[in-house]
Amino acid sequence: MSAAMAEAVGISPAALKQSLSDAAARIEATLDAVLVVPGGSEAILFEAMRYAVLGGGKRLRGYLVLQTASLFGVSEEAALRVAASVEMLHAYSLVHDDLPAMDDDDLRRGQPSTHRRFDEATAILAGDALQTMAFELLVDPALHEDASIRAELALALARASGAHGMVGGQVIDMQGEGKSLALDAVRRLHALKTGALIRYAAEAGAILGRADPDARARIAAYGRDIGTAFQVADDVLDATASDAELGKTAGKDLAAGKSTYVSLLGIEGAGAEAQRLCVQAQDHLKPFGHSADYLKALAQFVVERRN
Amino acid sequence: MSAAMAEAVGISPAALKQSLSDAAARIEATLDAVLVVPGGSEAILFEAMRYAVLGGGKRLRGYLVLQTASLFGVSEEAALRVAASVEMLHAYSLVHDDLPAMDDDDLRRGQPSTHRRFDEATAILAGDALQTMAFELLVDPALHEDASIRAELALALARASGAHGMVGGQVIDMQGEGKSLALDAVRRLHALKTGALIRYAAEAGAILGRADPDARARIAAYGRDIGTAFQVADDVLDATASDAELGKTAGKDLAAGKSTYVSLLGIEGAGAEAQRLCVQAQDHLKPFGHSADYLKALAQFVVERRN
Repeated sequence: MSAAMAEAVGISPAALKQSLSDAAARIEATLDAVLVVPGGSEAILFEAMRYAVLGGGKRLRGYLVLQTASLFGVSEEAALRVAASVEMLHAYSLVHDDLPAMDDDDLRRGQPSTHRRFDEATAILAGDALQTMAFELLVDPALHEDASIRAELALALARASGAHGMVGGQVIDMQGEGKSLALDAVRRLHALKTGALIRYAAEAGAILGRADPDARARIAAYGRDIGTAFQVADDVLDATASDAELGKTAGKDLAAGKSTYVSLLGIEGAGAEAQRLCVQAQDHLKPFGHSADYLKALAQFVVERRN
Repeated sequence: MSAAMAEAVGISPAALKQSLSDAAARIEATLDAVLVVPGGSEAILFEAMRYAVLGGGKRLRGYLVLQTASLFGVSEEAALRVAASVEMLHAYSLVHDDLPAMDDDDLRRGQPSTHRRFDEATAILAGDALQTMAFELLVDPALHEDASIRAELALALARASGAHGMVGGQVIDMQGEGKSLALDAVRRLHALKTGALIRYAAEAGAILGRADPDARARIAAYGRDIGTAFQVADDVLDATASDAELGKTAGKDLAAGKSTYVSLLGIEGAGAEAQRLCVQAQDHLKPFGHSADYLKALAQFVVERRN
């Protein structure tokens, strides 16, 4: 079904993978150029920041920025800086998530997590500084001559990632451990914890490109749906994939007694929900025609990935 | 000497203290209004953020914003929002500093530190979300109609507080524990760790008020000098004050084997250096006449405080 669906939008799974890995390489080159290690004894901080953000990953959020920006004629350089920014924000959240006081994860993408490779204090500060730098990249005049676009991007990132977004969702998640949550509560948790930043990444291209309100609303709706689809698929993966496939510990949700889409809908039901969201996400992009083919294929990829 | 010096700039110590406490009350009212606790299970996050940022303190950074803003005719509402933002940024740094993996401090201003009152995970996330909200307040259109001012404030805050500013300084400080540092290295450490944010707080009023380049440079130089004076005085206090006076553990620098202004210059030498910086800071403000009297008195206060 994967190949048939992806080809239906004109992009083969192999072509999407190539596009994703090309984008990841360009985003990583941008991160590499921005994160220059200075000479003083603070060098270790920059090394930890580089370790956290240059340690691989799908670059899904950065890819969303690049693809939506391309719909609106944004310069590659500006889109790459915004992509690097959202990847820094995401990396900071992973570094802090992995800390002993949080998820206590020794591994991230099959490698020692940042506090294991360095130490806890350095990991806390590297996460802090990655968050700061994510905002710094957005408000720097080097990004765009129009300050209102820079300020709007930073505002959207703050709303997506702060107490009313990602961090709020993390706290809801912590509070829910060992408790039974209803489907609506699980939806809200994930809309905040992971959905808000994915939606922001999609919208960022529309903000950068001064998209008209209808186009921006469609991009936002697409971002919201693939954000949810991503999480539903994540729950399915946590329940069905191996540690080796995930590059991290599988089965953690069950062990933590968390309510998930799988615990509420079953593995098949969750899979069907992910497919429904994928089709809905693709439908939002119809007016963009073939220029949105990679974004449509990405929706399919998100629900069918094995890691 | 305190009274004589302070009166020389036209403000009695009592009048300055009243001005500081009036400003603190207005800043706290602004923080209280911005940090509304929502209804969901994320309420605990907002309670921790409020605990961290509303737990008292001199509000030195916020006061600097208000006073420099008043030199340039900035609206009280905008100045208060920027003051609240810098106090959030400062509070986030204290919450993370106090964590077991960092300074492991159980007390802050005589009260349980945030991770002791809540738990470590909540404290990490509350610190994270306070940082985000500090930037959110600056880029929100509610602050100022001119987006270039909003973006410039956020850029200045990012540079002062991130890897090239406060957080970089914290790492240099950690790396220097148990090592002997030269005076230049100690100066650089503190210019980053505490000086950059204090200087930013002073400059923020000038940015908000679109100060001309000469005025802005004077305000920045004042901010730099009182930032250094503040730290020199802090080292003297750490070596001479009691736990009760400080509201935190005294003598920590010595116990940690840190090079300080006191270990390098002696208590008397450090006191003289603080006085020299105070006079130099006041000199930068001469062109502003009596409208800068509170800022001049503040320079004296910073070096003569006992906590």
